[in-house]
Amino acid sequence: MVDILHRVGAKATAPEKVYEALTTVEGLAGWWTEDTNGKGEVAGGVLEFRFPPVGGFDMEVLELRPAERVVWKVVDGPAEWVGTTVHWDLRQDGDFTIVLFKHQGWKEPVEFMHHCSTKWASYLLSLKSLVETGEGAPAPRDVQISDWH
Amino acid sequence: MVDILHRVGAKATAPEKVYEALTTVEGLAGWWTEDTNGKGEVAGGVLEFRFPPVGGFDMEVLELRPAERVVWKVVDGPAEWVGTTVHWDLRQDGDFTIVLFKHQGWKEPVEFMHHCSTKWASYLLSLKSLVETGEGAPAPRDVQISDWH
Repeated sequence: MVDILHRVGAKATAPEKVYEALTTVEGLAGWWTEDTNGKGEVAGGVLEFRFPPVGGFDMEVLELRPAERVVWKVVDGPAEWVGTTVHWDLRQDGDFTIVLFKHQGWKEPVEFMHHCSTKWASYLLSLKSLVETGEGAPAPRDVQISDWH
Repeated sequence: MVDILHRVGAKATAPEKVYEALTTVEGLAGWWTEDTNGKGEVAGGVLEFRFPPVGGFDMEVLELRPAERVVWKVVDGPAEWVGTTVHWDLRQDGDFTIVLFKHQGWKEPVEFMHHCSTKWASYLLSLKSLVETGEGAPAPRDVQISDWH
């Protein structure tokens, strides 16, 4: 089992604001994909993220701790993703809100996992930008990192 | 043991050009850190990457296969890095040069590893930009991702 790990820090913002960007459809649509639907503010809720025309992911909310922690489980999407979990841990450190990210439970370090690792980094910088400036870079306006988008 | 994995694709370029950016001091200074010295074009050579004022890394070149593969071993730097290896695999895929990256041999998934994973992604996008446009974002002009720079 191998994991994707990342860490970013958003300046002059609060964990509450990042938590909102991770749990509301409006927040998620502001940094990950504009085509976001569902319910992210309650445990057991399901969020539907789509990236036309290539598909997307359905995430069940496993755990919520306001301004501290969000955990999702992938219940539908690419075979490599189904059953994996996505963990967000937030804390205040001086003037920064620190975001620790883990996408856990990949069975094999396939090439698609390499791609998703880099892509997650670029979306985390989009999240940072959203909470710092009000403007993220969600799909379809996301940063293209390769032939796989 | 845990690894950092990434994948980017540089458009309208050739593996030879990426290989040059990974093996020459001028190339490396164009995307990673302007303060690069040493010898990257021969196996056994040592490259010295510095990020004033916080230190840096010395890498010994373990393996070179022109336009295909570069492997470095960290021989000096932060304790978490020493002994780890950095692998670059290149190939042509249509109009793209695909770069598969692996930073292998971390003992523990510490918070610093999360940071380095995101930071590597941003430097890989700097490498992509350098070979595509002639302009990267090496330190000290690199993208700040957090309080840890």
